Amino acid sequence: METAYLPTPRTTPTRYRERAHYDREIVHRILDEALICHLGYVSAGRPVVLPTTHARLGETLYLHGSTGSGPMLAAKAGSGLPVCVTATLVEALVLARSALHHSLAYRSVVVVGDARLVEDPAEKLRALHSLLDHIASGRAADCRPPNARELAATAVLALDLVEVSAKVRTGGPADEPEDCTLPHWAGVVPLSLTAGTPVPADDLDPATPAPPYLTRYNR
Amino acid sequence: METAYLPTPRTTPTRYRERAHYDREIVHRILDEALICHLGYVSAGRPVVLPTTHARLGETLYLHGSTGSGPMLAAKAGSGLPVCVTATLVEALVLARSALHHSLAYRSVVVVGDARLVEDPAEKLRALHSLLDHIASGRAADCRPPNARELAATAVLALDLVEVSAKVRTGGPADEPEDCTLPHWAGVVPLSLTAGTPVPADDLDPATPAPPYLTRYNR
Repeated sequence: METAYLPTPRTTPTRYRERAHYDREIVHRILDEALICHLGYVSAGRPVVLPTTHARLGETLYLHGSTGSGPMLAAKAGSGLPVCVTATLVEALVLARSALHHSLAYRSVVVVGDARLVEDPAEKLRALHSLLDHIASGRAADCRPPNARELAATAVLALDLVEVSAKVRTGGPADEPEDCTLPHWAGVVPLSLTAGTPVPADDLDPATPAPPYLTRYNR
Repeated sequence: METAYLPTPRTTPTRYRERAHYDREIVHRILDEALICHLGYVSAGRPVVLPTTHARLGETLYLHGSTGSGPMLAAKAGSGLPVCVTATLVEALVLARSALHHSLAYRSVVVVGDARLVEDPAEKLRALHSLLDHIASGRAADCRPPNARELAATAVLALDLVEVSAKVRTGGPADEPEDCTLPHWAGVVPLSLTAGTPVPADDLDPATPAPPYLTRYNR
């Protein structure tokens, strides 16, 4: 397999082309690190964007939802649902001396393609397993697996990673040379997602210790 | 003005209707707190979802971009660009005893409508000012304002807050009663966006102190 995705017109940005990346490893890392993504599809000719969790297994991205949810009904109605899945990690504020050079440092991935409803029961179980482990690695093996009723009420979408691009903006501000003597502070403010101490459910036996994959949670 | 947005078929979820909110104050708070949103539009019949920053001024949401960027070109070509703008704040992992009751605690807003390109120079300047203050409150007054060339290269989209809904999921896991005796830990892991110490740009005079709106940054 090639180490990079092939750029297409749809995955080639019109601006800041130097920020575009097609390397599989860069793409995989962003998808795996992002807790959620935003799923876009078209309904009655208009765009719909919904937040959802995702999981990557090799070169396939999985999403899930109730069989009665909008995107799952749309996917059932056709043969492959045209989607755009975007995952974004914001890493810093970038403050320049001039208003329009302000920016964010970020890493994002855009995947476009036709998503298919997963029909194979084994693939569906694998996908649900990985969706759970995406949230907290190790959790899928440490909970009650789905039963037949729950599986019937849950739909899984699969999207092959074929038309894919990453966009990465790192570093500090890029001010115009003549602005550098202005008195305004310039630089970056790093941002990070921090996990707090696990809070047990009200109905949990207080003797039950929180598992290490939660007490040392980190993305 | 009514204190709530009027639900429409497009802003009424098919599932978990009890999580839907239309209160303006709830919606405003989520939009103001979210650093970025995801903008969805339709290009050649297919969905496109891009991360971008936004700012709310009263009942209008503003987005900006290069005049040469995809959504700005699409908006220029028509009279109002059909968009869906979604902003999501993830607040906790929710771990249940059963796989399919796992969830996230989150607050999100979905705005649908036809966005218009802002033509009025005064409105455009106000929008750019608010986009900067959305990133860091107080920054717009503490940098060089855009000049004529920069303004000409930047397009601003306005989307009136008319068809709007929020979705809020709070609290702990909701396990089936018969699962509560299972040995798995259940509860929540709080997540928060944390700002680090401001890092000055390489070309900044080290005597320049970081402004308080950055040293005490918090969303």
